[in-house]
Formats: sequence, C-alpha cells, structure tokens
Amino acid sequence: RINPDRLWDSLMEMARIGPGVAGGNNRQTLTDADAEGRALFQKWCEEAGMTMGVDSMGNMFATRPGEDPEALPVYMGSHLDTQPTGGKYDGVLGVLGGLEAVRTMNDLGIRTKHPIVVANWTNEEGTRFAPAMLASGVFAGVHTQDWAYDRVDAEGKSFGDELKRIGWVGDEEVGARKMHAMFELHIEQGPILEAEGKDIGVVTHGQGLSWTQVTITGKDSHTGSTPMPMRRNAGLGMARVLELVDELAWSHKPHAVGAAGHIDVYPNSRNVIPGKVVFTVDFRSPDLAVIQDMEARLREGAKKICDEMGLGVEFEKVGGFDPVEFDADCVSAVRAAAERLGYSHMNIISGAGHDACWINKVAPTAMIMCPCVDGLSHNEAEEISKDWAAAGTDVLFHAALETAQI
Amino acid sequence: RINPDRLWDSLMEMARIGPGVAGGNNRQTLTDADAEGRALFQKWCEEAGMTMGVDSMGNMFATRPGEDPEALPVYMGSHLDTQPTGGKYDGVLGVLGGLEAVRTMNDLGIRTKHPIVVANWTNEEGTRFAPAMLASGVFAGVHTQDWAYDRVDAEGKSFGDELKRIGWVGDEEVGARKMHAMFELHIEQGPILEAEGKDIGVVTHGQGLSWTQVTITGKDSHTGSTPMPMRRNAGLGMARVLELVDELAWSHKPHAVGAAGHIDVYPNSRNVIPGKVVFTVDFRSPDLAVIQDMEARLREGAKKICDEMGLGVEFEKVGGFDPVEFDADCVSAVRAAAERLGYSHMNIISGAGHDACWINKVAPTAMIMCPCVDGLSHNEAEEISKDWAAAGTDVLFHAALETAQI
Ligand SMILES: NC(=O)NCCC(=O)O
Ligand SMILES: NC(=O)NCCC(=O)O
Repeated sequence: RINPDRLWDSLMEMARIGPGVAGGNNRQTLTDADAEGRALFQKWCEEAGMTMGVDSMGNMFATRPGEDPEALPVYMGSHLDTQPTGGKYDGVLGVLGGLEAVRTMNDLGIRTKHPIVVANWTNEEGTRFAPAMLASGVFAGVHTQDWAYDRVDAEGKSFGDELKRIGWVGDEEVGARKMHAMFELHIEQGPILEAEGKDIGVVTHGQGLSWTQVTITGKDSHTGSTPMPMRRNAGLGMARVLELVDELAWSHKPHAVGAAGHIDVYPNSRNVIPGKVVFTVDFRSPDLAVIQDMEARLREGAKKICDEMGLGVEFEKVGGFDPVEFDADCVSAVRAAAERLGYSHMNIISGAGHDACWINKVAPTAMIMCPCVDGLSHNEAEEISKDWAAAGTDVLFHAALETAQI
Repeated sequence: RINPDRLWDSLMEMARIGPGVAGGNNRQTLTDADAEGRALFQKWCEEAGMTMGVDSMGNMFATRPGEDPEALPVYMGSHLDTQPTGGKYDGVLGVLGGLEAVRTMNDLGIRTKHPIVVANWTNEEGTRFAPAMLASGVFAGVHTQDWAYDRVDAEGKSFGDELKRIGWVGDEEVGARKMHAMFELHIEQGPILEAEGKDIGVVTHGQGLSWTQVTITGKDSHTGSTPMPMRRNAGLGMARVLELVDELAWSHKPHAVGAAGHIDVYPNSRNVIPGKVVFTVDFRSPDLAVIQDMEARLREGAKKICDEMGLGVEFEKVGGFDPVEFDADCVSAVRAAAERLGYSHMNIISGAGHDACWINKVAPTAMIMCPCVDGLSHNEAEEISKDWAAAGTDVLFHAALETAQI
C-alpha cells in the first residue's frame, strides 16, 4: 500500500505554487508558476532516484530503471497545469500519485522488469492555449509540433515562445519514446462515483469532444441613437446561438452535454452595440455520431439565426477528439487491482478529456478515477478526501506494478 | 461664416492623437492620449487669444473676454474623449467647432457683450469610467466629486488617481462657474437627418437613459463531466436575459431601445461552465415612464429566469438620466440661426446622452446636430462631410453670437 500522508503532503505542497483566490490554484500552463511547479516535481523525482528527461514540447519524464534492458517502460502520469480558477487535484493527483507509487516501490525495495516513468504532460487544460491536451496530442502524432508552437494565448503570446521563456524546451524529440503501457489516475470531475458510493472508477471509455469557435460579426454602433430596426447586434445573435447549444445537448437521449465557457465581446463598451462576439462551443458525447450531429446542427442553426439578423458568422474547429475505448488488458489490470485491494469499483466513461485519450492511440492505456465532492471540478472549491486519493493511488500502483512485470 | 477648411484641418490634426486601428480614434478619457489632446486644444485656444481655466474634475474652459464686465459667459463645447473604437467627430466637432467660432470672431473683429467660453468636458463617453457624462454631471450637481473620483476602470484604477496621473486636476471648484447659456454642437449619431436630407437638427429634447449592471451567479464547473441537470450556467442565464432586453425595447410603441454592450464572463475558459457573468443593460426612451417600465420588467423578468435556472442575480444602477427638454430661448436661437443662414433644418430628439443634458439643469442650454453617414457612430468608420461640419459650426457660431449680445 502507498503512504497516504506522504501523498497528501506532496499535494498540499504543490498547491502552494500558483495559489488561486479562493483556496484553489491558478497555475496555468507556461506561466512562471508552472515553471516553479515543474522544478519542484523534478526535485522530488531526483530525490526518489529517478532521472528526468524533457522533450521539445516540455513534457517531463522521470525514469526509474527496470531490470530488463530491452523492456519498454510503464508510464504513469497526468498534468500539473491548472485552470485559471482550478482545483488542487485535477491532473496533479495523477502526477504525484505516480511519484508516490515510485516512492512506495523504493520503500519496499521492489524491482520491476520494465522501467517505470512518471510523466507530466504540458498544457492539458487548454485554457491559455487551445486545444486541451496539446502536448500529449503532439506526442501521439495528432498535431505537429510546429502547429502547437504557433498556438497563441489571449495576449497573442505563442506556445513556443512561452515554453522557451520559462526554460522548459527539452532536447528529446517529442513522440520518440515507446511505451509498454500507460496509466492515468484522475479525479472524476463528475458526480457519479460519489453518488454510487464507489471508491474506484474503472474507466472503459472517454467521451469525445468538439470545440467550435464561433465568430459573429455585426456592426458597432451607438446603443442610444441607432434605431432598433437598423441594429446588427452581434451580442444578441450570440444569445440566440447559446440557447441553440443548450437545446442541441438536451435533444439527444441520453442527453449529450453542451455549453460555451469562453465568450469575448467587442468593443465591450456599455454604449456600443457589440460589433463582434467570439465564443467557443464545447459539445461532448461518448457517441461520435451524436457529436457530429450537434456540430452540424450548430453550424446550420447559427447560420440561420445570423442570416435572419443581418449578422455574419464564421466557424472554426479549435479542438476535439473522438470518443475513446481504452486498452482491454490495461482496463483489466485496473479492475483486478481494485478487486485485489478490496476497493469498491464500477465501470465509468470519462466525461472530460485526458492525456490518456491521446496516448491510447500510440500505446496500451487505461485510466483510474476517484470520486470528488459534489462532482465539482474546474472550480477552486474542488475537493477530495485523503482516503479517495489513497485508494486511487493504490490501484495505480498495483496496476502499473503488475503490468511492469509482464 | 466660419472657415470650413481651418475647422477640418483642426479635426484631422486632433484625430492624429490616439489613433484607432481602423481609421478612427482610441483616445479614452484620462489616458496619455487624452492628455496629449488636451494640451493641443489648450495651445490652439491660447493662440486664439483665450485664457484657460481648469476645474478639479479636469473640465477645461477657454475664455474670450466680453465687453460687459458683469455679463455671464456664453458657453460652447462638448468632449475630446472617445470610445475605444470611436470616430473622429463624436464630441470633437463640438469642441473644435466652438474654437472655430472664436477664431472667426477674431478674424472678423467681432466683440461680444458676454464673454465666450469654449469647454471640453471630461469623461463624456463613460466607457472607461461609468457613468457617461461624469464631469458635466458633477458640474451640474448630479454627482458629488468624491463619488466621481472613486469610479474605477476595468483594471481597478480610479478616476481621481488617473486625473492626477495625467496632470489635469485644475484649481477651480467644479460647478462654481455660472453661465448665460450653453450650446453644444454634436453629430447626430443616428440616421434621421441624413434620411430626411436636412443640414441641421434643432434638438428640442434628449432621450433618457438607464444603465443597469446585472451580475448573474452560477457555479463554475467542468463542461465535459458535469451532467446537464446539475449545471448552473451563468452564461446561459445571460443569454435569456439578453433576449428579454430585446423584447422589452420592442414592446413599446413607438419602440424604445435596449441592448447590452458590455459583457464579462468568468472565468472565461473554454472548458469551464461560466460561474459568473457581469453585463450592463442600456435602455433609452424620450419617455421616463417607458424607461421605468423597462427597468422594472428587466429586474422582475431576469429574477424569474435566474430563479428557474438555480442562478443568483443582482442589479446595480450604474448610470442614467431622465429625458431632457432643452431651453426654449436657446432652441429658438438655434432655429433662427439655421433659418437666417439658409440651412435646411428639422426638430430632433437626441438619441444619445450629451454633456448638454446635464448642463441644462443649471443653465439655459440647447444643442445643434449635423448628419453623419449611415447614422453610424461609436465606430471607427464614423464619417461626416466637410459641408455638414461647416453648416453645424456656422449655426453654433450664429446662435452663440446672438445670445452673447443680449
Ligand atoms: N480533465 C480535464 O479537465 N481536461 C481538460 C480537457 C477537457 O476539457 O476535457
Ligand atoms: N454622445 C454620446 O455618445 N455620449 C455617451 C453617452 C451615451 O451613451 O449616450
């Protein structure tokens, strides 16, 4: 069994870097706080006898050698970056859980056939630079590195420049590493495990995602002296499209999900009718056909709304991935570990996207979930119990260990 | 007659300060560009033989002496601040038109009984610091100076600190000046004069305004893993309230106007359901009862929408003024001047708020409007012809001159 107190202390120490305003974290990718978090993780890995490799996307890989020089490593990992108003566990648990598993192997003098690697994937959250899971996506060959480097944040700073600025451009070629398997532990970020009273979610599938950036163009004009019939109000057009997004998600049975979290209004002045609005629609479902249906009906419906209002509209797909089915052997290893350790468990579909969803394309992969209070995540009030964290990490440890011997 | 070329050259020279991105201006109040514009105006006034007084709100008053030492001055003026994506004429024409009238009096050796003052009022636009017409409002006793000093911009900088920073806190007590009359020339910012083919709008009334800042509170949570029934999406609540705003404006016959130009979404991340949205609703009508009706139905309707969605909602009135009836004698002077000069004219109600609306509370006041292309304003593409500018300035010159002799 892993050491719950040591795990928890590390989680709390990491949470001191990039504190939020309400008890959570703002440690967005490629900020100074991200660099500080990386350095702390590296220090801990080295203290645990691991050696750090870094690739040209800033992905970090801490290796504990195996006994068979030919054997490919077993990976554990997730991400240390957070939302702007994020929690202390989203991503972090999967990285520090991997570290705790290695510390436990050291305590117990366990040797493995395969090397063990603990990974921190860059820019999982996708807030500062869309899309999410950017660096694991490049690793898996989904995006090119050049394209990833050119992604810009809201201030126009590029991913490539910011990675360089914080000093974490590594010398490894991204994606060159081969894996025997990869396991990602993550909080559920949804309410199901808590409601069902289960310690462990055995993640069999992941929902697919589509991010469509919508730009509606009207005409800036005076809110007072422009008669109603002459208005081309991009803000009102957006309001109607947001209603459509909600309707589309509900229209599927069982319901899909849909919302817009990102909305920018121009020029954003109280007495100027918005001439332009840019927002991103997030649609998800475990069923690819449902996602494609919502996407198509969004484009068609928004076009119709905007045409009727004399507004222009453009769509750009800024992120997305297809629904995922995780590797059967890895999933079995997770279920067997939970069973062996006596934790209650159930199969679950991940509602969120994770680095494991991309890595699954290039290596046998599975995920382990633990509950979080009220299913709340992407909120500074995100909370888990020490017991939940320990159970998830125990299962991670055992699933990885078993896989590393075969 | 005034000198159209000299007027136009001054307009174009002022427009070089705080250029926009699309041919217009971004010379927002109390920025460095505002300070530069003020300095140029002061230089021009002094070259025209006037002396500059500045009050503690940064309002500028350039005086041309009169012959009767007892007589109160006749004021002409408007504002030099612009929207973030504003035009070259909104406000500026009324200030530089006043200057051109004085330059013409100098050319023609005209002496007046009453002194003539050309005024530049601080923060008319209200984008950076709400409400609009802030400094003329303090002058007219509508707001206290302490309250005005405490207004903050989006970055939390206060009006008082920023006025000091740019070096334009004057030593005159605000509102201490008494006026014989005030005339404000302004572009219409609406489509009526152009459509009717009239050179001059004789402004008899001004619409009233109400700005209500609405804060909707939901719960930040994950866009992927939060099931639809558990969501408390403040962005969707806003969408429904924006629809209501539009309905309320149309519900009045003749229609009132309503829109939201300012919308801020928090935390504004693609994969976080908005936990908070803050936006400002702008309602206007020439009829106070209509404004009050829209305000009341907004509060009631938004409360109902938000209650049904499990969202919190709060309202704050951040600006507003009652509909205005301008001074009959001043309005007659404007009409008589247009008549005498042979310009086509019609009565008009101002759709926008203007410094004249506040000054009308403390002095006999009227406004002169000239057309603008397509009624477009609060847009960098705002345009007027040199002939329109000249006609408006001629009428300003004659109305002020006539009033300054009686
Ligand atoms: N786990 C997580 O929040 N990942 C970010 C990508 C997503 O929005 O699903
Ligand atoms: N004229 C003008 O745009 N004034 C700003 C105040 C308003 O929004 O009416």
